[in-house]
Amino acid sequence: MATNRTYLDYNASAPLIPAARDAVVHALVQTGNPSSVHQEGRATKAILEAARREVAALVNAKPDHVVFTSGATEAASTLLTPHYVMGRAPMRLSRLYVSASEHPCMLAGGQFSAEQIDKVPVGGNGLLDLERLRALLGSHDRSQGLPLVAVQAANNETGVLQPIPAIGALVKEFGGLFVVDAVQAAGRIPLDIATCSADYLILSSHKIGGPKGVGAIVAVSDLVMPKALVRGGGQEKGHRAGTEALPVIAGFGAAARVARERLNSGGWPARTRETIEHSIRAIAPDAIIYGENVERLPNTTMFSLAEMKAETVQIAFDLGGIALSAGSACSSGKVGPSHVLAAMGYGDGTGGLRVSTAPETSEEDITLFLDALKNIVARRDRSKPAAADAA
Amino acid sequence: MATNRTYLDYNASAPLIPAARDAVVHALVQTGNPSSVHQEGRATKAILEAARREVAALVNAKPDHVVFTSGATEAASTLLTPHYVMGRAPMRLSRLYVSASEHPCMLAGGQFSAEQIDKVPVGGNGLLDLERLRALLGSHDRSQGLPLVAVQAANNETGVLQPIPAIGALVKEFGGLFVVDAVQAAGRIPLDIATCSADYLILSSHKIGGPKGVGAIVAVSDLVMPKALVRGGGQEKGHRAGTEALPVIAGFGAAARVARERLNSGGWPARTRETIEHSIRAIAPDAIIYGENVERLPNTTMFSLAEMKAETVQIAFDLGGIALSAGSACSSGKVGPSHVLAAMGYGDGTGGLRVSTAPETSEEDITLFLDALKNIVARRDRSKPAAADAA
Repeated sequence: MATNRTYLDYNASAPLIPAARDAVVHALVQTGNPSSVHQEGRATKAILEAARREVAALVNAKPDHVVFTSGATEAASTLLTPHYVMGRAPMRLSRLYVSASEHPCMLAGGQFSAEQIDKVPVGGNGLLDLERLRALLGSHDRSQGLPLVAVQAANNETGVLQPIPAIGALVKEFGGLFVVDAVQAAGRIPLDIATCSADYLILSSHKIGGPKGVGAIVAVSDLVMPKALVRGGGQEKGHRAGTEALPVIAGFGAAARVARERLNSGGWPARTRETIEHSIRAIAPDAIIYGENVERLPNTTMFSLAEMKAETVQIAFDLGGIALSAGSACSSGKVGPSHVLAAMGYGDGTGGLRVSTAPETSEEDITLFLDALKNIVARRDRSKPAAADAA
Repeated sequence: MATNRTYLDYNASAPLIPAARDAVVHALVQTGNPSSVHQEGRATKAILEAARREVAALVNAKPDHVVFTSGATEAASTLLTPHYVMGRAPMRLSRLYVSASEHPCMLAGGQFSAEQIDKVPVGGNGLLDLERLRALLGSHDRSQGLPLVAVQAANNETGVLQPIPAIGALVKEFGGLFVVDAVQAAGRIPLDIATCSADYLILSSHKIGGPKGVGAIVAVSDLVMPKALVRGGGQEKGHRAGTEALPVIAGFGAAARVARERLNSGGWPARTRETIEHSIRAIAPDAIIYGENVERLPNTTMFSLAEMKAETVQIAFDLGGIALSAGSACSSGKVGPSHVLAAMGYGDGTGGLRVSTAPETSEEDITLFLDALKNIVARRDRSKPAAADAA
């Protein structure tokens, strides 16, 4: 691979931070199964529980309410189910209400069938239509079961932040359960499960600088929990069977600790995003920046250039040494229009380019990105018909 | 932790082999999401596909027919479902037939309800009762759907090998699908999916010297596949959503390569197990060795000492520096009678001690184990009432 690459695709996967790498390497060579009662087993169990405390602390939860999963997608597949339990008593959730701009793992609806799912529209700014959600919950038939509402705290493509406390208040008004996909928000903005009105948060390690292959369900309490999706042994208090993925869980714990320390020491600089967006407007005045006027993550900008397909522009950036996304990365190289932009009313298939950064992103990274953008826009303008030039 | 420990609990979790460690560490620092189309994404995708080829080769499968999961438990939860698809057409499996001595992740029955599951008994030697399986399949009501049969190739506690080709032939006779839990067999005895008559094999990385947190479903073809359990993006050809756990998958690939090389160069020494069992009989003539007269894994011995609870003996070994298991490790420190021994007719709750080794196990390890066993047996014999001594 060429050196001097500029990586601006943190929302797809954040490079591993050194503390997480060290934690993985340390846990890797620990022999033993955390369920074994011998000395080796107990030592691995201690690593597991230390990581659980770190992940809990990132969102002010109790360690006992953290269930490790293989990632956010498994967490979503587990939480989005009609089958919950209160203690040992089954509890039925009869419909899922999910915002139209969710990540595919939420839109897939987990164990709900297609006819049990309502998509709640978002506006042109990406914000959930609260009145529509109120109307849907108002007509929910509680005789069949409770409503389950699933919304992401921050959109993975646009960075748009949903008003989680307001949505949560609405869900509580109608006696439902509220699942919040906090994958992109965690570590980037403060999240407190005790006050944000979510019943469950979904977290992913590799979006916060930890290793791939691990995530978590964080519950506000363990009173009501989804029926286990992965079943077998009694690990994770019966909420998720299977030998725990110790090395990557240890790395997740370390990444959560660093993320919390960063948030406590002032959080992420919004300056980078402002610089990027100011420059995009200067270089391409006809560019659209999605969700421009609403609260967004400090690290994410989704934009498109007039008359240019996002996929084409993304390839040009890649050849120019800049890694960024056209839409999200979640569909295995599948190229197609962004369902997020379509939900926001931009359904023409132009697509958006996502720049996503981290505090590690340097001034030079930004300069290289903007230089590449200038070249791309200049090339586009040169190829315009003379009539357009004359206009 | 004390040094000079002797680890004889490979069936619970095998220590990471150096090649797997190197592969994890190499993949850890690769930035990018395998689904991203930029250069970084493609480089991670290449690591993923190389590991897929290694895992496929271990059981002579096609790489395209390997679906990575977070472990064997997730693989079992995925495969044990009434909902399969042939291409896009749904296909219903109406009952699950599972042997009574399976691992808990198979006995849990995945997505089948309790009333859809039949347990097939095993004999005192641990072998599946083929006639009983034939009778059950003979009375299966095909108007409701096809039968699904799930059996482990090698038992995790006793090492007893089931006659997989014979069971598979029976399943085919009745038009069913056959899931084989190959977790403990893989890498220890030759397995060839093209000839062993399994439709699906379940593999686990950390039982063959790879990292925890990854396993696989290996299918004989992709004609008929279970409906995805973990749903969302299009990874793993739609069979398993979620960003791939790249570092541990890379480690799994390396462990599979080493396991295959070991099998090709003569396999595992049965000598270690013979030495252990010969010595157990000499030290404690009243010991029971489970499945003594049937084919077993070359690395596993399950035994019990008369008048001694396995849990107590296990603790004595642990204090003496020897890590081994009382039963299996899968139930998070839960102490209780072994369902495997109960299924074999040893239901008195004495429990069994499992010694499980690897080619790395040294003569000294065995000597230390046998010395500890001698001490434990001598202590037991000293505490016997005088009447017993005089007898």
